[in-house]
Amino acid sequence: MGYSDLDQLAINTIRVLAVDATSKANSGHPGAPMGMAPVSHVLFNKFMNFNPKNPDWVNRDRFVLSNGHGCMLQYALLHLFGYQLSMDDLKNFPSPPVTPRLTTLPELRSPLVLSGQGFSNAVGLAIAQAHSAGVYNKPGFELFNNYTYTFFGDGCAMEGIASEAASMAGHLKLGNLIAIYDDNHISIDGDTKCAFTEDVMKRFEAYGWHTEWVKDGDNDLEGIEAAIRKCQQVTDKPSVIKLTTTIGFGSKLAGTGGVHGNPLKADDAQHVKSQFGFDPNQSFVVPQQVYDLYQKHSAEGAAKEQEWNQLFEKYQQSHPTEGADLARRLSGKLPEGWEKSLPTYKSTDAAVASRKLSEAVLEKIHDVIPELLSGSADLTGSNNTRWKNAVDFQPPEYGIGEWSGRYLRYGVREHAMAAVMNGLAAYGTVIPAGGTFLNFVSYAAGAVRLSALSRVRVIHVATHDSIGLGEDGPTHQPIETLAHFRALPNCMVWRPADGNETSAAYYMALTSKHTPSILALTRQNLPQLENSTIENAIRGGYVAVETPNAAVTLISTGSEVSICIEAAEYLQKNHGIAARVVSVPCFEVFDAQDKEYRLKVLPDGIPVLSVEACSTMGWERYSHEQFGLNRFGASGPYKQVYEKFEFTPAGISKRAIATIDFYKGHGVRSPINRAFQQIL
Amino acid sequence: MGYSDLDQLAINTIRVLAVDATSKANSGHPGAPMGMAPVSHVLFNKFMNFNPKNPDWVNRDRFVLSNGHGCMLQYALLHLFGYQLSMDDLKNFPSPPVTPRLTTLPELRSPLVLSGQGFSNAVGLAIAQAHSAGVYNKPGFELFNNYTYTFFGDGCAMEGIASEAASMAGHLKLGNLIAIYDDNHISIDGDTKCAFTEDVMKRFEAYGWHTEWVKDGDNDLEGIEAAIRKCQQVTDKPSVIKLTTTIGFGSKLAGTGGVHGNPLKADDAQHVKSQFGFDPNQSFVVPQQVYDLYQKHSAEGAAKEQEWNQLFEKYQQSHPTEGADLARRLSGKLPEGWEKSLPTYKSTDAAVASRKLSEAVLEKIHDVIPELLSGSADLTGSNNTRWKNAVDFQPPEYGIGEWSGRYLRYGVREHAMAAVMNGLAAYGTVIPAGGTFLNFVSYAAGAVRLSALSRVRVIHVATHDSIGLGEDGPTHQPIETLAHFRALPNCMVWRPADGNETSAAYYMALTSKHTPSILALTRQNLPQLENSTIENAIRGGYVAVETPNAAVTLISTGSEVSICIEAAEYLQKNHGIAARVVSVPCFEVFDAQDKEYRLKVLPDGIPVLSVEACSTMGWERYSHEQFGLNRFGASGPYKQVYEKFEFTPAGISKRAIATIDFYKGHGVRSPINRAFQQIL
Repeated sequence: MGYSDLDQLAINTIRVLAVDATSKANSGHPGAPMGMAPVSHVLFNKFMNFNPKNPDWVNRDRFVLSNGHGCMLQYALLHLFGYQLSMDDLKNFPSPPVTPRLTTLPELRSPLVLSGQGFSNAVGLAIAQAHSAGVYNKPGFELFNNYTYTFFGDGCAMEGIASEAASMAGHLKLGNLIAIYDDNHISIDGDTKCAFTEDVMKRFEAYGWHTEWVKDGDNDLEGIEAAIRKCQQVTDKPSVIKLTTTIGFGSKLAGTGGVHGNPLKADDAQHVKSQFGFDPNQSFVVPQQVYDLYQKHSAEGAAKEQEWNQLFEKYQQSHPTEGADLARRLSGKLPEGWEKSLPTYKSTDAAVASRKLSEAVLEKIHDVIPELLSGSADLTGSNNTRWKNAVDFQPPEYGIGEWSGRYLRYGVREHAMAAVMNGLAAYGTVIPAGGTFLNFVSYAAGAVRLSALSRVRVIHVATHDSIGLGEDGPTHQPIETLAHFRALPNCMVWRPADGNETSAAYYMALTSKHTPSILALTRQNLPQLENSTIENAIRGGYVAVETPNAAVTLISTGSEVSICIEAAEYLQKNHGIAARVVSVPCFEVFDAQDKEYRLKVLPDGIPVLSVEACSTMGWERYSHEQFGLNRFGASGPYKQVYEKFEFTPAGISKRAIATIDFYKGHGVRSPINRAFQQIL
Repeated sequence: MGYSDLDQLAINTIRVLAVDATSKANSGHPGAPMGMAPVSHVLFNKFMNFNPKNPDWVNRDRFVLSNGHGCMLQYALLHLFGYQLSMDDLKNFPSPPVTPRLTTLPELRSPLVLSGQGFSNAVGLAIAQAHSAGVYNKPGFELFNNYTYTFFGDGCAMEGIASEAASMAGHLKLGNLIAIYDDNHISIDGDTKCAFTEDVMKRFEAYGWHTEWVKDGDNDLEGIEAAIRKCQQVTDKPSVIKLTTTIGFGSKLAGTGGVHGNPLKADDAQHVKSQFGFDPNQSFVVPQQVYDLYQKHSAEGAAKEQEWNQLFEKYQQSHPTEGADLARRLSGKLPEGWEKSLPTYKSTDAAVASRKLSEAVLEKIHDVIPELLSGSADLTGSNNTRWKNAVDFQPPEYGIGEWSGRYLRYGVREHAMAAVMNGLAAYGTVIPAGGTFLNFVSYAAGAVRLSALSRVRVIHVATHDSIGLGEDGPTHQPIETLAHFRALPNCMVWRPADGNETSAAYYMALTSKHTPSILALTRQNLPQLENSTIENAIRGGYVAVETPNAAVTLISTGSEVSICIEAAEYLQKNHGIAARVVSVPCFEVFDAQDKEYRLKVLPDGIPVLSVEACSTMGWERYSHEQFGLNRFGASGPYKQVYEKFEFTPAGISKRAIATIDFYKGHGVRSPINRAFQQIL
């Protein structure tokens, strides 16, 4: 305790930097940074351990700014503490398009955030901490004891994703998670009384959180410090501090919507500076004593990391197995030879649903990849995400799991699951995989998009991937879902056709460190294919059936590949037509192959018909004609549903013949040949 | 009060029907119907007013089964009360694919439901009731006083969408909304203690709801009735009843996850029947006295509708203006000649952002279409969704609006907004429009999908539709969003290029009674185009620039159309190349035009280049080559961002020339010519 003029100067420096950067950019949100500068100052200087020289230190305290529009707050802090973020970077806020540095900055190595997302990422970071502590901490070796802090605003508090994550965090009793709610009563539409009058703290209590309230978040630095300290003492619950602040503190428009999303007017910016003792005619000024204060704290953080490194060295001697395992995880490498555990299949092996094939992968690899954390949004038995001897991640007092458990019960919370996985992946010691039905990955679209944009390795086990799920009907049968996520940049959508392709999908998902994956898996059984191998499938597309003098290529994914192979036989037998079959389990990966390979898979001169029991959207990229389902599905036993829509050897053959006839006499070029390169 | 053996018989009849239907189908969820039969019996017989002979009666009580997996409960009730749902229909549960009757049945005219969605639909239905009462009720004429009831389960309670909707309902003090929470402690993963241990009632109290708890929901019929009656008496808050039940009541597996999602074993089904006094060897049995009891209630409902019709007749005499307006709304017709109010533009008019053009439409039509309810998810000033003299829909005691207000403050709750709009649209007296950024319509994907599947007229005002939003950067810039919703069946995605196209989009959105629309609108200004007219644009696609002997067609949408027109001029001027330009503001509508028209727009012999500053996914449908953005965007002033990615006349021309060269000497067929018809 005991705050001086220097503390106040530092706080005002942050405020003025936020005003300057947003004014210069003529864009951005000055209000939240001005209101949250005091709590930031206290939190970062009195509580948080981090080393700007090594932002990757695994036991650093984590911070996620969930009210991400206030990002100038975080940028200012990063700059003051000496992270690689120069004053010129701040002057370029939000940064010109040529060097999109600030908006894509991996803020303290946490994923990019949007209202509600960051809060949920923080829950994931806190789970990863609790789990890592459960796995690695030993008497005398508290390797993992970092806190996860998150700031969130009224917008976050309104978002359902944050409600889901808060409920989950309360259940999981995440004692090292401390959330600070910027209770400024302002959102974009103005006073929150127009839409948001609930009792937020009571709601968090209902979730099982410890709550605190600091009534004067603008000035009461001692009160802020005391509240955070109390929260740290509550070890069996996550904590939330309601911090009542004045948005745009210091501005003429303080406390109004006028400072939320617009830079201050020039005279108001000058007013703020004068009031805080800054020269109203100068911009981007940081008093040297503020730098000194902040960088002293950074140096203390560096010393703490040094201590930790020494502790970890001793740990590696006294606990060589765990020590080596952790060192490997921190290096970012998977265990040597892990891929030998991936199951492989012969074409004579039994037909199996790809959700079961996925289960077989998890069963085989969970021992060799101990960082793999599986889970499901309340569909464990359907998603087949749980290996036999899995232990749940649960507070031990429930008697149904352990902190070291590797199976997460996400509940019916698809959006939070995806965002929590983003947090898990960002922590650095675990790789998350989570299951739901493919159709309900759409509920998580916001978080999946941020997985891709934040470049984190997250695996979505998305079962029941088409009308092949049968009886549950159109509410559960995806039509648009594959197209949606295939259109998302940096997201691998895998739809494996059999066992080897499923193993290939996992191989790619696990080895692509900066790309999330969606594995679309069937409810129904699939036969093992002749030419399917892991080596073929990891190219994203390959020839499943080569035929001399083929008149048509059938290209397909997942459950429809084997039907296409039957269709090829049907065409030969009934019409004397030779057909090739191509399986393309992942567009994203196939597109990344060299052109020569792709042209071998889809050569010139042969018309291509695509077959997938979902929207045809996007299939034109690889085919001249498309057979799909541009309508909602139907309920019934899956074979009947497939017949209704003619996804049968006869139905495919009919369209293959139409395709051959249509292109007869027309020069057919491979869809791989394009007039120009795409911007990627 | 006073329940007899007949009541118990009726309850057990429902239970046994649920067992029989799921057993015969070998699919479905018997547990929830068995547990919720008692509350259904009490609610439907003692409280609910409805007339199975006219399911459209506007003042009927509404019922939404949010825990929709228990739909056999609702099907059984519909059958017993005499709705058009025969015993054969129940025997065909979940219905064969050829007649997908049950799974697509408009359950009591409410949209199809999934966990959490139905709860939010109910909030929309309750808002529509409160609004309609505010508009039409007069002393002596309480035309709108129906209740909205919803059942929800643990799954719904976990879903963020329901949290958002519950917070909104509490704020709005929706006194006629009564939710019943099936507290059976079981979800698909088993006991809820594995993921869901929060205090649900305390959470609802935090939202401002009245709460009740019936501890023995299996047997305490009096308690259930008393609780519902108390909730009806609380008129200034929505109410929730926690009903502790035993899932699968009567089964050997009662109270376990075993009865949640699987039919009972044969011996267990027999056990249930014996226990409840039914012949264990007979199936689908309804005692006549149960039919009599239920259909007596239906007859009472018909009489109540009759009374209401008489009241409405008198109302039309004493309040002719309101009466005629309501009669028109109930007929489903828009006001005669309303479309004359749509603004039109000349090419000499000023450039305006399409979000502002949308505002101009709302400003012009809100008076002539009084059933239009606008709103925004806390982006009112950015979405431009509020006409100048709009009144907020708010409980009057807040002093910031009225029940009759037509502007909804949805808060930062995109998913609930979309689901609430589904409920609003289903009520029958209003047409909802709601705004957010296009990128955040993805947060509402689950509810938008159900708009399309439930065939309701809902308008999404989706502004900031591309990299053209500039500074907010990649987190806000849609890439995959248009492809996603274009792939969704029965969903119109409009991306208008100017004022007339914006008016056309509204014309189609308002006149398509069974299709939701997403209007993708710009932040930046757009010039008014030469050939753009409402008549052209409502065909979904048209020729914006016709040129004799064109070497290439540029096809585009929205903000890129005018750049394509500039590119055509650039090509002519700098390269002597003639280019046509096509604007295709809505794929869904263009695809529905006759082939002759579409071939005029995209004729044979001319290669087509598509231009859209988003994912190219799907554009191959109309073009030979595609220019788009298959990566995330960038932050900066929008003109710089467009230049960075070459969405400029020069950048387009370069690719147009490459396209012409690539197809030189190759017969070029229109992409409209296909080998076979799609399944629609």
